[in-house]
Amino acid sequence: MSATSTLSRASVNRQFVLAARPTGMPDDETFRLIESPIRALADGELLVRAMYFSVDPYMRGRLRTGRSYAPPVEIGGLMVGSAVARVVESKNPDFAVDDIVLTYMGWQEYAISDGQGLRKLDPAIPVTTALGVLGMTGLSAYFGLLDVCDPKPGETVVVSGAAGAVGSVVGQIAKIKGCHTVGVAGGDDKVEWIKRECGFDAAFNYKTATDYAATLRDLCPKGIDVYFDNVGGPLSDAVLPQINVGARISMCGQISQYNNSKPEMGPRLLSMLIVARAKMQGFLVTDYAARFGPALSVLTGWYRSGQIKNREDIVEGFANLPKAFLGLLKGENIGKRLVKAE
Amino acid sequence: MSATSTLSRASVNRQFVLAARPTGMPDDETFRLIESPIRALADGELLVRAMYFSVDPYMRGRLRTGRSYAPPVEIGGLMVGSAVARVVESKNPDFAVDDIVLTYMGWQEYAISDGQGLRKLDPAIPVTTALGVLGMTGLSAYFGLLDVCDPKPGETVVVSGAAGAVGSVVGQIAKIKGCHTVGVAGGDDKVEWIKRECGFDAAFNYKTATDYAATLRDLCPKGIDVYFDNVGGPLSDAVLPQINVGARISMCGQISQYNNSKPEMGPRLLSMLIVARAKMQGFLVTDYAARFGPALSVLTGWYRSGQIKNREDIVEGFANLPKAFLGLLKGENIGKRLVKAE
Repeated sequence: MSATSTLSRASVNRQFVLAARPTGMPDDETFRLIESPIRALADGELLVRAMYFSVDPYMRGRLRTGRSYAPPVEIGGLMVGSAVARVVESKNPDFAVDDIVLTYMGWQEYAISDGQGLRKLDPAIPVTTALGVLGMTGLSAYFGLLDVCDPKPGETVVVSGAAGAVGSVVGQIAKIKGCHTVGVAGGDDKVEWIKRECGFDAAFNYKTATDYAATLRDLCPKGIDVYFDNVGGPLSDAVLPQINVGARISMCGQISQYNNSKPEMGPRLLSMLIVARAKMQGFLVTDYAARFGPALSVLTGWYRSGQIKNREDIVEGFANLPKAFLGLLKGENIGKRLVKAE
Repeated sequence: MSATSTLSRASVNRQFVLAARPTGMPDDETFRLIESPIRALADGELLVRAMYFSVDPYMRGRLRTGRSYAPPVEIGGLMVGSAVARVVESKNPDFAVDDIVLTYMGWQEYAISDGQGLRKLDPAIPVTTALGVLGMTGLSAYFGLLDVCDPKPGETVVVSGAAGAVGSVVGQIAKIKGCHTVGVAGGDDKVEWIKRECGFDAAFNYKTATDYAATLRDLCPKGIDVYFDNVGGPLSDAVLPQINVGARISMCGQISQYNNSKPEMGPRLLSMLIVARAKMQGFLVTDYAARFGPALSVLTGWYRSGQIKNREDIVEGFANLPKAFLGLLKGENIGKRLVKAE
């Protein structure tokens, strides 16, 4: 007999599948909700029910065919993504009912697992942090800033997408490292938040700034040593001519480009990398998997001491997953966007 | 009394000065020839007479105001550059008449020096190599390839400007390191030369190729691990989508862009750096000055054993310096372009 949660064990699962590949911005036609029965567990399996889903910019890449670091979601296939979930039934001795786990279960309410790849979460820490500052988000900020850029005290660090999940943590880590941190975000409320709560020394709203280059010169009087880029596009065009000798550019994302069906045109500025003997490097957090343990220890310490804040932007309801994701691509969120499922 | 060469010691120096900053390609109006008297030497000084001048793509940058790694030549100022020269008169005990030296004397027939920064050349090795494979050219190839890219045996290395002074050495070093080397050059004669003499495994003429991407796919069936870029522009646009995971891009030059008065537009492809977790890095050979000695030893060994060839493209006559430089910017040369002065 399998142990079963006191929570009602639904017999029907709801899943979002990819209905059509979007060209440009995804919309209401991109995903479709389907229902399917939940089968009985085999020995060694467990059933989890989603509590919180992470929605992330990288997911736009999974909707696209063509070259990427991971295969695309197939048409009709379950949309991928991480979630925090509760074990509701278990025939696996390593997991008990009501354990809370981190799982790459995708956009569905229930999932059956053999336990591989699940990480049990410490109930003493808010479980949603496993999708944010103590998860891929925080780890992306940690390795993308510290490993790729190695910022030194007194250096100027510019962060694009600075009010986003990764960017806001980057700024806080840069501050811990003694850097002059400058954030770029899309909204006055975001700018206000990253300055007040995340400790950015300066920030500006790219949606209202009329001259990025002049604004950057003003906020970065000693030039730019480190650029942590989540966005790309015209902001990067303004950053490149202002990088200092030996500058490091960490390419985490290029969200301004993700909805283009063909590459946008922009000025060729790579000569600046020669003038400044600068490095531009792309990274994927998963390449650092072997070092997640020690990094999470450090991040957990910073989080517990209050040096890093984890702001969450929670959308209620499983059915709102697509809407929450589209809003993320449009820059609606401040901090880490999650969808609360139950 | 100072020692004097048996060569007639002219009393008049000829110099090329910058007449006007070019917009776009430099032309006959860019430089002006002037004459000036050669004064008597003070104690500790020596007089050199140029034998060979180096002309190099970086010189285009010295004609331009705006951000660079070195100040521009002033209007009316002596054009800068390296030369191999002979000591014709000396009041410096460290230099004897007929010593041959490497000097950054600029575009003039004679120069007075206090000996600082001069390097005496070994007469057992052809002295022009000090401007080529055993000079900044070879060192640029050495550090830009080995230090920035660290190529491994079996990796695919693509070189743009592959028949130029630096590019042709890059290909030969890559071959020594056991790489599959692919060169891109502007002419069938160049392609033929780099394949036959420089050991490139494959090469193509970008002036006649109709589809760079298809040609690269054909010549780089395992993708591109290292890209040594002297040129930039549309060729780089074709390379970026074909880089392998962990690729390294060394930015030595962007000669296709140097004559643009404002940045050319091109497709935004930097997302490829994320997909491939790739690094793009600019470098300046002078930043490696502390390591020139050991590097020159290695290069000298390769040169003496015939593993690296030093092809020279010699233009005769001091008066032809501007023309030789303009031709270089247009890609006339195969191998290292020099101007023979005496």
